[in-house]
Amino acid sequence: MNVLNDEYYMRLALELARGTQGQTAINPVVGCVVVKEGRIVGIGAHLRMGTAHAEVHALTMAGEQAEGGVAYVTLEPCNHYGRTPPCTERLIESKVARVVVACTDPNPKVAGLGLERLRSHGIEVEVGVLEVEARELNEAFNKFIVTGRPFVTLKTASTLDGKIASRTGDSKWITNARSREFVHTLRHRHQAIMVGVETVIADDSQLTTRLSVPALNPVRIVIDSRLRVPANARVLDGEAETIIVTTSAAPEEKRKELRGRGIVLLEAGPGPRVDLELAMRMLGEREIGSILLEGGGRLNGAMLEQGLIDKCYLFYAPKIIGGPEAPGNFSFPGFDRMSEAVTIDRLKVERFDEDICIVGYPVKK
Amino acid sequence: MNVLNDEYYMRLALELARGTQGQTAINPVVGCVVVKEGRIVGIGAHLRMGTAHAEVHALTMAGEQAEGGVAYVTLEPCNHYGRTPPCTERLIESKVARVVVACTDPNPKVAGLGLERLRSHGIEVEVGVLEVEARELNEAFNKFIVTGRPFVTLKTASTLDGKIASRTGDSKWITNARSREFVHTLRHRHQAIMVGVETVIADDSQLTTRLSVPALNPVRIVIDSRLRVPANARVLDGEAETIIVTTSAAPEEKRKELRGRGIVLLEAGPGPRVDLELAMRMLGEREIGSILLEGGGRLNGAMLEQGLIDKCYLFYAPKIIGGPEAPGNFSFPGFDRMSEAVTIDRLKVERFDEDICIVGYPVKK
Repeated sequence: MNVLNDEYYMRLALELARGTQGQTAINPVVGCVVVKEGRIVGIGAHLRMGTAHAEVHALTMAGEQAEGGVAYVTLEPCNHYGRTPPCTERLIESKVARVVVACTDPNPKVAGLGLERLRSHGIEVEVGVLEVEARELNEAFNKFIVTGRPFVTLKTASTLDGKIASRTGDSKWITNARSREFVHTLRHRHQAIMVGVETVIADDSQLTTRLSVPALNPVRIVIDSRLRVPANARVLDGEAETIIVTTSAAPEEKRKELRGRGIVLLEAGPGPRVDLELAMRMLGEREIGSILLEGGGRLNGAMLEQGLIDKCYLFYAPKIIGGPEAPGNFSFPGFDRMSEAVTIDRLKVERFDEDICIVGYPVKK
Repeated sequence: MNVLNDEYYMRLALELARGTQGQTAINPVVGCVVVKEGRIVGIGAHLRMGTAHAEVHALTMAGEQAEGGVAYVTLEPCNHYGRTPPCTERLIESKVARVVVACTDPNPKVAGLGLERLRSHGIEVEVGVLEVEARELNEAFNKFIVTGRPFVTLKTASTLDGKIASRTGDSKWITNARSREFVHTLRHRHQAIMVGVETVIADDSQLTTRLSVPALNPVRIVIDSRLRVPANARVLDGEAETIIVTTSAAPEEKRKELRGRGIVLLEAGPGPRVDLELAMRMLGEREIGSILLEGGGRLNGAMLEQGLIDKCYLFYAPKIIGGPEAPGNFSFPGFDRMSEAVTIDRLKVERFDEDICIVGYPVKK
């Protein structure tokens, strides 16, 4: 039972942006609603990198009705010539009287310039309507545009004793079908999915997105310092792009073979282990702006230790499997003191039937 | 945390329809999302009676990308030439492979015909995704299109002892500012607002929609059997259209005067009271498809007794005012037995800060 006000229209614009999560690559998701005299006259969203921005779609639908109206946009309109002309110009030409923006551009170098340009043309500008929601929606973009590094979302699925498989290695399935469907939705929303080679060897997962409707496959990234990936692994099946991050310690012959099969190899450091921080930088340079990290335990632990995880979705099935040798969700030497533990901030708890999903952000020290 | 599936896209289409409530007159609100290979390629909504339907906007945005895609529509696409060409033709031309529909046309004479037409062109059609939500969204349209009578939503604002004013007539304000803002949002969503002449005399309300953003003014309907409406009443100020429903017992002179001022007069029966059932029929003939009934107590009581109320929003402020002579929210002779009471079905309870709003549907016997 929402009241008709600025938030009402911005909420709809945010829904439009939310619906397109996953389909804009390193571009932000953006929604736009154009309103004139108490009536929505245009709606739009940015649908694909390199194509029209949200404002352009909405203003095209509105046509002449935009004149004197209000444009609600979830992100500050761009003010530069990129892959498309600046949206500020289009807003000015359309003669809207007012622009309401949820949040400014996350890039501090350009934040506010678009708004300034609009104001200098006599357009009334308001900023900050549903700002928190809008920023969260583009949290990956916000990190990437400023740091050039991908936003890493960790996903684990474990028992209540933190195990991701039994002591015999059995892991199908820990969580229920609804949880797994949501995980595939997370895959759709991320540009890449990342696993360690041990997971590839143990599970031979295809790492594609399988849902009841067609969805986008993320790039598959395997962390594999010595190129132990089996030649017939499903992750090399060509169904989606695959990048293997290795080290210069990996055997030359294996490298040639994989490159010959169209697999992209990145060399992150001299070895013996992959330099994960360097790997993130290299992946960012390849315009990978968001990564869903799906373990296993050792890669999860290493990424966590090095402060490379931005967000986590920790699924817990209501089961206890036991076994000290059963692999855990975070495998790393650990800290001596409880006060040193990595804490998870801004917690949300969601249910998928009997499964519990804890969502939060590891605090970086 | 929604899973990517048919409901995911239909939910977005429903949000688009919901956002346009109030702006399509007697037309239904409809949203449409076109999806191709895991990517939203077009979004649309029906924005105004006589202009493009939701499907047309979404398919225009999608362009050639619609081919082989899926169109999610909240209502069965029309299959006839009305104010615009049939959407079924447009969907067929666009070569979408699949159409997912939330609910069929409420008009039993044409329900299913649009779907049949699509199927006969080899388009895969699925019906019933989020059907309940979609039907509720157009509950007014659904009644009007079948019966030709407006859907009547009652709104009252009372104390916990059911009073809409003190014994001295003081009523400003019972409910809080947030509740009142929501009531104005309800005005925006209805084609007409209806009050009794006693309310006009007592409160001299303007009955327009006043919100922090521009909104639509409903037609103002005054039930006034003998044309006692004061000549300087704000409801006659021309700010919005006004219809006075009277009887043939009303003085001829007063009639002429009001007609001379551009007020529409409807004569519902010989008097002494307005024949409310006839009034509803006459208003329906004038393409008033939805009415927000804002009392007072006697009109509310009469409408309730005659089974003319379809839905109610009963606001309660956490106050007790007392006074047997203080006016109540429903003033009518009443029933002898508790078992005869009008019951309210499908209850929802909402909070507006300290105010409580009970939403439901009076059961018709």
